[in-house]
Amino acid sequence: MSGPAQTTPHASSRSAVLDVIRAAGTISRVGLARATGFTGATISTVVRRLIDDGLVLETGRAESTGGKPRVLLQLNQDSRYAVGVHLDLSGITYVLTNLGGSVVARMSRAGAGEEDPPVVVGRMAREVEALIEGIGVDRSRITGLGLVSPGPLAPAAGMRLTPPAMRSWEDFPLDRALEEATGLPVLLDNDATAAALGEHWSGVVGGTATFAALYMGTGIGAGLLINGLTYRGASGNAGEIGHVCLDVNGPECWCGARGCTEILAGPAAVVAAARADRRLARAAGLTSGKGNKPPRPSVAAEFAAVARAARDGEPAARALLEDSARHLAVAARTLANVMDLELLVLTGPSLAIAGSTYLPVVQEEMDRAFFSRATHPVEVRLSTSAATAPAIGAATMVLQSELVPLRQGLRLPGNLADAEPGGTAVRAAHGG
Amino acid sequence: MSGPAQTTPHASSRSAVLDVIRAAGTISRVGLARATGFTGATISTVVRRLIDDGLVLETGRAESTGGKPRVLLQLNQDSRYAVGVHLDLSGITYVLTNLGGSVVARMSRAGAGEEDPPVVVGRMAREVEALIEGIGVDRSRITGLGLVSPGPLAPAAGMRLTPPAMRSWEDFPLDRALEEATGLPVLLDNDATAAALGEHWSGVVGGTATFAALYMGTGIGAGLLINGLTYRGASGNAGEIGHVCLDVNGPECWCGARGCTEILAGPAAVVAAARADRRLARAAGLTSGKGNKPPRPSVAAEFAAVARAARDGEPAARALLEDSARHLAVAARTLANVMDLELLVLTGPSLAIAGSTYLPVVQEEMDRAFFSRATHPVEVRLSTSAATAPAIGAATMVLQSELVPLRQGLRLPGNLADAEPGGTAVRAAHGG
Repeated sequence: MSGPAQTTPHASSRSAVLDVIRAAGTISRVGLARATGFTGATISTVVRRLIDDGLVLETGRAESTGGKPRVLLQLNQDSRYAVGVHLDLSGITYVLTNLGGSVVARMSRAGAGEEDPPVVVGRMAREVEALIEGIGVDRSRITGLGLVSPGPLAPAAGMRLTPPAMRSWEDFPLDRALEEATGLPVLLDNDATAAALGEHWSGVVGGTATFAALYMGTGIGAGLLINGLTYRGASGNAGEIGHVCLDVNGPECWCGARGCTEILAGPAAVVAAARADRRLARAAGLTSGKGNKPPRPSVAAEFAAVARAARDGEPAARALLEDSARHLAVAARTLANVMDLELLVLTGPSLAIAGSTYLPVVQEEMDRAFFSRATHPVEVRLSTSAATAPAIGAATMVLQSELVPLRQGLRLPGNLADAEPGGTAVRAAHGG
Repeated sequence: MSGPAQTTPHASSRSAVLDVIRAAGTISRVGLARATGFTGATISTVVRRLIDDGLVLETGRAESTGGKPRVLLQLNQDSRYAVGVHLDLSGITYVLTNLGGSVVARMSRAGAGEEDPPVVVGRMAREVEALIEGIGVDRSRITGLGLVSPGPLAPAAGMRLTPPAMRSWEDFPLDRALEEATGLPVLLDNDATAAALGEHWSGVVGGTATFAALYMGTGIGAGLLINGLTYRGASGNAGEIGHVCLDVNGPECWCGARGCTEILAGPAAVVAAARADRRLARAAGLTSGKGNKPPRPSVAAEFAAVARAARDGEPAARALLEDSARHLAVAARTLANVMDLELLVLTGPSLAIAGSTYLPVVQEEMDRAFFSRATHPVEVRLSTSAATAPAIGAATMVLQSELVPLRQGLRLPGNLADAEPGGTAVRAAHGG
């Protein structure tokens, strides 16, 4: 069906109103009507229910332009919490956020590494428990758990087509297993999409509602927000710029294609090149790779070591990062050309470390070669929460999803093509 | 502002209702309420106004499941018409469509070539006049004129950064000039975006509301429909896959970047390679390029000649097209990876001629290397109206725009970032 799906008011009025209250801080009912376009009667009904459910508080009155002062509304921040988990080969990041998306607790633990998925899930459940107990939040107030990991993802089947090191995760029912282990409802989504949502809620994005978050962790991807909604594509895997082709004659990538961004410029490529330069490898403190003594540091940890060497003035390290940045910049330009973007945010754990090298290179590429540069510039910003944006986005997805009545067909991949309100992700299907 | 803009009902209810009636053929008020999510009262008001304006007719009754039979509504097809013009270096295509988007008249004329913009605009005005007079439609029923051309476009400034052969069009106020010459309101948009809309209204797309139209005329681009709405990006120039990088070490493109799809695989590249092969150039009937006798055939015409040679069994021509197809397929995969697409339509004048060579190559690339192929396939279809889709889309933009009350801020490029109901394009700003 075309067009009007977006205009359906009842399915999303609750979440729309809540999102406006969140973004505004405090706002009156009249302000809500103006911001959402809903009638006063609709606003009145929705707000009454939000107050009854304890999600929104009345909080004093604002001066009115004539007439009686207007009652101001704000989120009841401590009424709900959500857990966000970012699972990556190199590390697992946990956050607990309140209803406003503010982080009230966070922790980082070892990544999935080479452990078996059920072992990792068991550990994650214990770590989530420790996170919740550490902060002393009543469990009944925890809405659920958002779990984000590298795509492609499929509901009730977990990851599909993983990088080689995570192959044992293919077709493992990650969401369902973690749901059983924690007793919390679990939403599964792509890490880069979650990063975009995390930036939207807590990052450097400000009021810009259409932007891309270019994500670099162990892999490379992007999350897309269009008009404040996450754009997820047909299966929740939109934004896969790690596997767009930058060189038709380039080396073969693990994904089956040739000359992908990730194989040319990803952290693993940088680390491999650094390791091949014996002097640089020693200067950066990389292990020799020979002898194969475990535990071998993660790709992200070794990338961080190269980035530190570059910062310490090691020219070979600097040259490697700049070459990676030039390739990433071309992929970023592809994304900007396809989406006609005005804003691009660099985020993710690897850019948390090396972003200051990448930022000027990406910005220069946009200024020089973005196709519509005669119409408008593309601004590139470095995230201020690059390491935790995916986990924050994961928690946000849960908060939003609890607040939106479960929509028809949400469980069917075929219906995921729509731009969904930020983070309405794949919900673990117990029955299915 | 985030989120709720989509849920504003009043701004687009009229166009949403009309679009559902159009798509359904005939539908009851109850069916409309169900399809749009609007209340019965809203539907009732909107439909009454559409009937008063003569845009919608009541047309018999349908059996109801109990209760009295429901009145069926349908578009009054002949109540409005729109002109669609597709301006390209190689040709100008004109269509006149009725309110349902059906083509009631069409014609093709010589392209912009090397004539001065004001001369071409004068000719276009005469050709539009001939189109309208030929079919004998009352001028008062013509809503306006949609004009589409290669991007990047800017309101009241026309094209920016054109291919070299169209450089004289840069900053020419195309929309305003044509508005003055024809006396019709003019909407200006990107040809590839219009092609996507044309496919949505009249093409092979069926019910799929999220897809990309991969366009090849003189240049290469793509139009994006997300959930039945054209995605235009910040300045109406989304989908520029003609200028994504396929080879970081490739030849420099006129756009300033390196290894773009267009420079590697576009019609001009195919023609140049054919011309360099003296035997093939002769077999395809290409002029020598020496002596410089005007009029030199357009790139599209020469590309068509190479395509015909390929169809006639000329192996060198076939090899050139297949190489172009392989590059275009990689660009198409980039688009599919970024948007996580399920459907891609090949369209545009050059694919109207050579599409049967390109289709299997693009399909094979999707099956082999689309990143989320383990989650779902990407279907590639060849348009059945590839030569006229941009012009049809141009007319459609006008029909839809007439039906949507002019929205706040529509003239400001900064506000074009939203996904707009199909074809709410840059309106010529008389005052500005």
